[in-house]
Amino acid sequence: VARYRALPDWIVLRPGTAEPLYRQIYRRIEAAILEGKLPPDSILPSSRDLAEHLGVSRMTVVNAYEWLIAEGLAATRPGSGIRVAVDQPAPEAHRSRAGPAERSPPGTPHPGHPLRMHPRGPALAFQPDTPALDQFPRQVWARTLKRCGCSPERDMLDYGHRGGYAPLRQMIARYLISSRGVGCDPSQVIIVGSIPAAIHLAAAILALPADVVALEDPGYSWARKAVERLLLNCEHVAVDDHGIRVDELVQRLPHARIACITPCHQWPTGVSLSAERRSDLLAWTRTAGAWVLEDDYDSEFHFELPVPRPLKADAGSERVILIGGFARTLVPSIRCAYLVVPAGLEDAFVEQVIILGAEPSLHIQAAVAEFMKEGHFTRHIQRVRKVYRTRRDALQRALTEMLGGIVTLRPAAGGLQVVADLPAHLAAEAVAREAAKRALTVRALSIHYARQPAANALHLGFGAVPDAEIEPAVRRLAEAIDAAQRTGLQ
Amino acid sequence: VARYRALPDWIVLRPGTAEPLYRQIYRRIEAAILEGKLPPDSILPSSRDLAEHLGVSRMTVVNAYEWLIAEGLAATRPGSGIRVAVDQPAPEAHRSRAGPAERSPPGTPHPGHPLRMHPRGPALAFQPDTPALDQFPRQVWARTLKRCGCSPERDMLDYGHRGGYAPLRQMIARYLISSRGVGCDPSQVIIVGSIPAAIHLAAAILALPADVVALEDPGYSWARKAVERLLLNCEHVAVDDHGIRVDELVQRLPHARIACITPCHQWPTGVSLSAERRSDLLAWTRTAGAWVLEDDYDSEFHFELPVPRPLKADAGSERVILIGGFARTLVPSIRCAYLVVPAGLEDAFVEQVIILGAEPSLHIQAAVAEFMKEGHFTRHIQRVRKVYRTRRDALQRALTEMLGGIVTLRPAAGGLQVVADLPAHLAAEAVAREAAKRALTVRALSIHYARQPAANALHLGFGAVPDAEIEPAVRRLAEAIDAAQRTGLQ
Repeated sequence: VARYRALPDWIVLRPGTAEPLYRQIYRRIEAAILEGKLPPDSILPSSRDLAEHLGVSRMTVVNAYEWLIAEGLAATRPGSGIRVAVDQPAPEAHRSRAGPAERSPPGTPHPGHPLRMHPRGPALAFQPDTPALDQFPRQVWARTLKRCGCSPERDMLDYGHRGGYAPLRQMIARYLISSRGVGCDPSQVIIVGSIPAAIHLAAAILALPADVVALEDPGYSWARKAVERLLLNCEHVAVDDHGIRVDELVQRLPHARIACITPCHQWPTGVSLSAERRSDLLAWTRTAGAWVLEDDYDSEFHFELPVPRPLKADAGSERVILIGGFARTLVPSIRCAYLVVPAGLEDAFVEQVIILGAEPSLHIQAAVAEFMKEGHFTRHIQRVRKVYRTRRDALQRALTEMLGGIVTLRPAAGGLQVVADLPAHLAAEAVAREAAKRALTVRALSIHYARQPAANALHLGFGAVPDAEIEPAVRRLAEAIDAAQRTGLQ
Repeated sequence: VARYRALPDWIVLRPGTAEPLYRQIYRRIEAAILEGKLPPDSILPSSRDLAEHLGVSRMTVVNAYEWLIAEGLAATRPGSGIRVAVDQPAPEAHRSRAGPAERSPPGTPHPGHPLRMHPRGPALAFQPDTPALDQFPRQVWARTLKRCGCSPERDMLDYGHRGGYAPLRQMIARYLISSRGVGCDPSQVIIVGSIPAAIHLAAAILALPADVVALEDPGYSWARKAVERLLLNCEHVAVDDHGIRVDELVQRLPHARIACITPCHQWPTGVSLSAERRSDLLAWTRTAGAWVLEDDYDSEFHFELPVPRPLKADAGSERVILIGGFARTLVPSIRCAYLVVPAGLEDAFVEQVIILGAEPSLHIQAAVAEFMKEGHFTRHIQRVRKVYRTRRDALQRALTEMLGGIVTLRPAAGGLQVVADLPAHLAAEAVAREAAKRALTVRALSIHYARQPAANALHLGFGAVPDAEIEPAVRRLAEAIDAAQRTGLQ
């Protein structure tokens, strides 16, 4: 193994310039790697040593290293420090990769070679569907996993716990009543691998081919995909500042079998469904014999009062199936979500979950249950809620300061993203393309629309962006907007 | 917490009687629990102490305790010994539960209350779909899980590795070529949660509603369920001593779109598809443009030469999709399986896996990959192959000795079960019912038939039955057959 333990003399910093110090360090190391000065698999100096050597804070070096890792130029392994990646991207690939202009909807396979050991993925600023990966208590999680993985209980080894690990179903039921105001029996909680799986599962059981399913527009494209495969008839209903247009739904699609909606934080706009519409929607489910699939994907993260409660917490919500998950509250890689299904339909859901193979490993389920039981889950949510609030405030502040004259921010009382409307002459898609050249993942809100015209707005996620990254990232966004404006004028 | 640390004076053993010592201990403790002498949550003496006290081997006590745990009368937790279960079954429930007469097909939800903390499940003797739970290297697995669970790599936390954790896909591809003779690119390996999920997934992509799917009869009922949900047209084809009747398939269902088969070890009969039929089947896929879904669920465990290779290893198998899993080679609770899909269809499979939510947690996938990479997987398979051979031999020997005049054993060159034909006057279903009363899970082979007449045979799994259990279990089976005969004569 080649090693690079000596402190580099070729990192020359220029403090006081516009370029942040961490970025300067990043660029110097990037150049050294691309030039071959730092060969693959060589070990980088520890962040502490390099920080001392350069006279900067350790966090500055850590930030630079995090960028190198995110870009796939370096990789980290526990106990062996940070190394130059073995599998170097071609320089052009590296340049163009930092955020494809046409960002796919959430959950799509990342672009690029699928079998790279250290997939680089798009930049975390401003990816809307990713939570604070840096805040996840990995050590506690790993210890819990280990404890669950060596359990000698027979039910932790065989085919048991169909429909979900019993203690996890109990913990989720307890969490739903205490934190979300939703009462249910643990047997009504069905565990699956993801929210699209939950939507697919419920639609497969509740609807027959050619039945109408109402979807929000703009909305969650994986909901549509989950439903289309079942040969159901997708119809889109407009969303405004108060959520889905329930009047349009009731008038145009009175016989819809299912409405698939995001009442607490509408995806992607973030708005909450108004009280009047909630009650109209529930009345419709009862008179039409329809079902609502309530996708409650991240409403744990709301920063202003009143905090919206799930529709399932309202009176008269018997025909609402609540769907929640751990991708936002923990991390996406855990791949665990749940439904609260009507009493009497549990067996049908369990059988279908087995067929779909959507049952997470029992060891993962048991670890999530332990995590909840020991209070780590609630503590984590409370902690990151503050982190997200800080990040949202920092993003809004930076956008206002640097781009106040250009973008118009919509209120963002909850969720992990901000919607910034653009003037008509500045196409969001062009900004997204320019942003991609500057190592940013910026999505045009229009990608979430099924019908035209779409809003001309940027969809900016702050959940996964470390605090110190936000201002530099907005600065790059300002450059991207500037470039898009110049291109537009030519 | 109530404790029972004093050594019991009410366990009086009678050595030299027909009843094994472990069973006597089990019955005494069972009686003490049901009578209330041992209250819920009281701690049982350690196996070492009790063995010394009673003058028996420690293994005898361990066996007795394992039975108590399997019956749900006791429970174990790491570091706190074995306790009397808090949630005692009602005496009748306990009696009738020990193996329902009408056993469901593999993978079915276990009967009984779904939210019991220590689900008792059916007796392990002679459950055909369960591997040697007692042989799984839990400690190694748990340490590996921990290591993967605390990885700081971004791709272990976010939505990455769609279609499967890249190193796991690589390890499986390597394993398939070196151990199973199947060559493929890692990108063709798609990771899912279970074999039914893999069948559902492939059928959803390759077939359209009303397409014909050919299934084996007798066969795997979850394959049928996975396919029926897609509104495909299921047709059954007979199985004989050389596997599925390919002549019948080709003549009766020439335009079938998919044939879903188990060529190496036919489920449930265990026979291997003959060389002639393999080549006829492959020729048919090419002329008819049909697909074979090859369910290779347990062919790692074959005890005689020649060891059958997957159909996918044959020349001309381009239209074969190989499906394998870790439920038999590791343990079912891991919930991880895979498909080898045709080059060019990878993206379609990946998208559908996301919709179905059939992606196992990345931490589980990474742990399986590490397990394989470090050689634990191959070592485990080699080790349990010997264990299974011993168990098979012991089962065949005991059946021949005790029931040689009544049952006729079919050859069992591989797999984890033995098929024992019964004379016409002795209905397998009646034997299964009597066996259930004696804490045995014995299935009539007839439950796997879609059409009549079914063979009159018992389906006896030995994989999960500890060596020392086999003879006593066959003795109870002999009693059950005796009782069924007496009932039949009345």
